[in-house]
Amino acid sequence: MFTPSERAIAAGGQPIADLMSRALGNPHLISLAAGFVDQSSLPVETMRVATEKVLGDPQRAQTALQYGENAGLPLFRDLILSRLRQADDLTNHPLTTQNVVVTAGSNQLLNLIAEVLLDPGDIALCAAPSYLVWTGVVKGVGARSLGIATDDQGLIPEALDAELARLESIGELERVKLIYVIPYFDNPRGISMPDARRAAVVEIAQRWSKHHPIHVLSDNAYRELRYRGDDIPDTITHDSMLETVIVAGTFSKSFAPGIRLGYGVLPAHLVGPVTDIKSNIDFGSPCLNQHIMAEVISSGLYDAQVHRVCDNYQHKLQVMLTACDEHLSRIDGVHWVRPDGGLYVWVELPASLDAGSHGELFEVALREGVFYVPGECCFAAEGAPSRPNSMRLSFGVQSPEGIRTGIAALARAIDEVARRQAA
Amino acid sequence: MFTPSERAIAAGGQPIADLMSRALGNPHLISLAAGFVDQSSLPVETMRVATEKVLGDPQRAQTALQYGENAGLPLFRDLILSRLRQADDLTNHPLTTQNVVVTAGSNQLLNLIAEVLLDPGDIALCAAPSYLVWTGVVKGVGARSLGIATDDQGLIPEALDAELARLESIGELERVKLIYVIPYFDNPRGISMPDARRAAVVEIAQRWSKHHPIHVLSDNAYRELRYRGDDIPDTITHDSMLETVIVAGTFSKSFAPGIRLGYGVLPAHLVGPVTDIKSNIDFGSPCLNQHIMAEVISSGLYDAQVHRVCDNYQHKLQVMLTACDEHLSRIDGVHWVRPDGGLYVWVELPASLDAGSHGELFEVALREGVFYVPGECCFAAEGAPSRPNSMRLSFGVQSPEGIRTGIAALARAIDEVARRQAA
Repeated sequence: MFTPSERAIAAGGQPIADLMSRALGNPHLISLAAGFVDQSSLPVETMRVATEKVLGDPQRAQTALQYGENAGLPLFRDLILSRLRQADDLTNHPLTTQNVVVTAGSNQLLNLIAEVLLDPGDIALCAAPSYLVWTGVVKGVGARSLGIATDDQGLIPEALDAELARLESIGELERVKLIYVIPYFDNPRGISMPDARRAAVVEIAQRWSKHHPIHVLSDNAYRELRYRGDDIPDTITHDSMLETVIVAGTFSKSFAPGIRLGYGVLPAHLVGPVTDIKSNIDFGSPCLNQHIMAEVISSGLYDAQVHRVCDNYQHKLQVMLTACDEHLSRIDGVHWVRPDGGLYVWVELPASLDAGSHGELFEVALREGVFYVPGECCFAAEGAPSRPNSMRLSFGVQSPEGIRTGIAALARAIDEVARRQAA
Repeated sequence: MFTPSERAIAAGGQPIADLMSRALGNPHLISLAAGFVDQSSLPVETMRVATEKVLGDPQRAQTALQYGENAGLPLFRDLILSRLRQADDLTNHPLTTQNVVVTAGSNQLLNLIAEVLLDPGDIALCAAPSYLVWTGVVKGVGARSLGIATDDQGLIPEALDAELARLESIGELERVKLIYVIPYFDNPRGISMPDARRAAVVEIAQRWSKHHPIHVLSDNAYRELRYRGDDIPDTITHDSMLETVIVAGTFSKSFAPGIRLGYGVLPAHLVGPVTDIKSNIDFGSPCLNQHIMAEVISSGLYDAQVHRVCDNYQHKLQVMLTACDEHLSRIDGVHWVRPDGGLYVWVELPASLDAGSHGELFEVALREGVFYVPGECCFAAEGAPSRPNSMRLSFGVQSPEGIRTGIAALARAIDEVARRQAA
């Protein structure tokens, strides 16, 4: 009788996997679930041009086809650093290329940080709700996720502070290693944290680092997908010594997930442990992909692509919000967030409606031809309670027409379940 | 005070990292150490042609730039399976595309298997000596590597059997989860296991699977790098139900490490656990790279490249063996293996000479301008004892001229240390 390792058992049975497999049974389904990116706006021509630049230069091509450094191609890491310096005022900030580590999307960075910081039984705090893959990664290393209360500006600093005090009072402060935040257009709610809250989270983490460092992992996956309003300084700007904040970035959402490139910006003491584990996992991310992406950035093609992508998503977000206005606003007690960027619209239903994956609405919606991520999947197992009456909708993959049809189908499903309840 | 997780501590401090950093201080050094591949024979034109095929077709390009399946692109996995069926008679063997999982080189497969099979304190058996990264991976998950005695046909089945009996007698059989072998031109010795030994290892694993399965991980990284002699049927042919043997393959050695693609062939019960963990690590290997590699294989360009690479390595192997004949054969008690393939020549010195990384010879060799992997790095911490008087030489990276110069420098170093000892 085969039993996999405890790790493998912990990594298995993610709720989203079961959900996806049920949905994939019907190919005609409109998925408003997956956080995948728009297929039609993927940068095919840009990739052709950049790849030919790399492979057309024999010496560069040979380097691109060879092994590379575990931490990533120095040229590429330099370019990532330059972009960070363009986005934020980092004068006098100690950040250098040595703090930048290239990873397989930001997802791998999340996994590496969980590996390096969390022993089994340790605690990672996050917003309630938060990114469902993150809570899965924490579970996968045998650690605990604990959700902190949020409002329409994200994680509430006072609630974070109170939770740390509570954990200290029950002798569990020593297990808290990490606070995970998504400050820009978060997953799943599309909400951004104001500058003052970012500063407060860093201050709280440092103040509670009494016996050991409590790090702040700032997942900036959606930062470049802003469709209106002004950019907000990154969490890292509030960590002037670069000893508390870890930044996760990715080219999956802003450019192309198929190249699997992201990065981490790490305090110096984490670079060694992270690259040691990365070495065991993959000997470093593909040199070829890093050379191509470096060419894309240095040639200016990257910025052009980000503009194109933002125009496209801005339109699709508007289509989704308009469809919500048209189909959902007539249903009592339905509310949704109007984000300034990102890929998601978060919908809350009347408290009596269960949008969970084993609830009536999810089944009826599948029958009506639409598929969403139940909000309950986005809450940590502990901490601020789950909201079963919520759902995450993504406008990333669907065409405008698909979005309209999907929202109309969702409205019919909500109507039907509400009618049954009233009967 | 920051302390990383137990995992991170276990993954750190690999002996080879220290060694590399000492050697990298001198850029004029001739490295006979790294198992990197020949830079000049990397397939630049092949990659240009295949990439243009993929990116020149807009629909295919979009798929290549999108997310993909955790287990890998079905088209690519089909092609891998076809090649396996060409190499071995797998009629009536239950192997299908579902058993094939694409990974970041074979290295990631080794890591995933360690994650899935080994809990802290578990035991993985391997040859003594074996692949140094493998023993590092086992250590990284908190498990134990135990080396089995070898002769010039690799791991000795009788020794394996005896060790399992010994472990049972001390109540540790239940901790044994895995036997790791490199049947083709192994790392570090370049030795291949005859068919009968492969069969014997599988039979032994199955016979000792009394309470739980003991798997055999067959690392075939060098299989395609054969320069003379006939191919040997794969270990998997001796596992007719595909329940014991796991195969690791890679395109790093035969094609290009910079695309970071390898694969595993897994018994059905391991596919789910392996892809669950891979999902947490990287959401699947880059679709772009898989599409390009699929094009390389299906167009026939891959076989052409393997022929080119083998011609090149055959020549460089001959250069190294000739240089050993010329410079080392005059030194009493120095022996080396003459492999039929792979990337390595294993040298054993008189027992009195310590080739270890903190020994005299390593220092003198560095001063003479040459750098090797001390054989001691290739032995598991437990089991058959290390041989401090051994070294692994690679002819992968150096030019023929570099190989000649390197071996001459090594001979001078050995001479000098032997002279000092005699004095």
